[in-house]
Amino acid sequence: MPDPNRRNENSRRAILDATRALLAETGYADLTVGAIAARAGAGRQTIYRWWGGKSAVVLDALVDTVAAEGMTLPDSGDLRADLRAVLRATVAEFADPVLSATTRALTIETLADDDLAAQVRDRLLRPQLDAVKDRLRAGGVPPEVDLDLAVELLFGPLYHRWLLRTGPLDQDYADGLVDLVMTAIGDRRSG
Amino acid sequence: MPDPNRRNENSRRAILDATRALLAETGYADLTVGAIAARAGAGRQTIYRWWGGKSAVVLDALVDTVAAEGMTLPDSGDLRADLRAVLRATVAEFADPVLSATTRALTIETLADDDLAAQVRDRLLRPQLDAVKDRLRAGGVPPEVDLDLAVELLFGPLYHRWLLRTGPLDQDYADGLVDLVMTAIGDRRSG
Repeated sequence: MPDPNRRNENSRRAILDATRALLAETGYADLTVGAIAARAGAGRQTIYRWWGGKSAVVLDALVDTVAAEGMTLPDSGDLRADLRAVLRATVAEFADPVLSATTRALTIETLADDDLAAQVRDRLLRPQLDAVKDRLRAGGVPPEVDLDLAVELLFGPLYHRWLLRTGPLDQDYADGLVDLVMTAIGDRRSG
Repeated sequence: MPDPNRRNENSRRAILDATRALLAETGYADLTVGAIAARAGAGRQTIYRWWGGKSAVVLDALVDTVAAEGMTLPDSGDLRADLRAVLRATVAEFADPVLSATTRALTIETLADDDLAAQVRDRLLRPQLDAVKDRLRAGGVPPEVDLDLAVELLFGPLYHRWLLRTGPLDQDYADGLVDLVMTAIGDRRSG
């Protein structure tokens, strides 16, 4: 007898895979629940019943990707080099037109929907920020540094520049940002 | 004979004043062009002809306020104290429910409209960031520090925390952020 839990899990996986594939092909704006259902060989009603709508299934697809990539940052023993790698990767994601448009669209929905905002924050954003916090802690950042603030010092400026388009977002920017933050958190003699 | 330029300027002022008053009373979401016109004693068509719509007249009202407050930061001779004052004021604005909701609503429209985004950036945001840059330059920040990056280091984390609601936004936060940034930009012996 087929196991209904396994069948549900297979459908869930197929729907999230279809969502990711269609996001890459058509982008968020043109993505529809109908297209996801067709690609996944599932019913539209299944998607609406399990997720409620497009933004929730996209969020799950993104959470799933981040979880699959693993939540722990590499530790080469060189904190500056490891942070540069993370910020360069983030800059590269924002430079990707499809990923950038998806993040922008999700940010818009997030700003207008407190419930979605809490989910994006707790399931997508927080685990990534926590992974960076863990790496900072392991990297010997002095205990008097507020690690939540240190993580925001890394990602806040980058997000600000991307969201408001105030300047170029490239590897030089990522490296310069890491250098400033390393100085901020590494040397606490003054203040 | 009445001067039509002056009459237009009086109408423009009345419309911007009405917009500010209604923003404070009803918030952005419930603000309508009709209500602005009624309060200002102007025609709705005038507002649509001069501005095109609600977001543009709100932007002008905000630009007008910032310009009236002056674009130069106070210089007490103590850079840390002056930056703390600016960041505490920004935190207080974000803590104001009406101002916060207006900024959030404008951010949403900005993300979905490249033309409005460019206007918000160049007319509202850039002059404020430039004023902070000028204060940093006058405060003796070493010339090798990228001032655009330094300004983003001050406002990016704050904006990130406000937009994504990842933690409390209060005076302690503002002060802690300034201290980290002062360390980042004040001491460049390493790197």
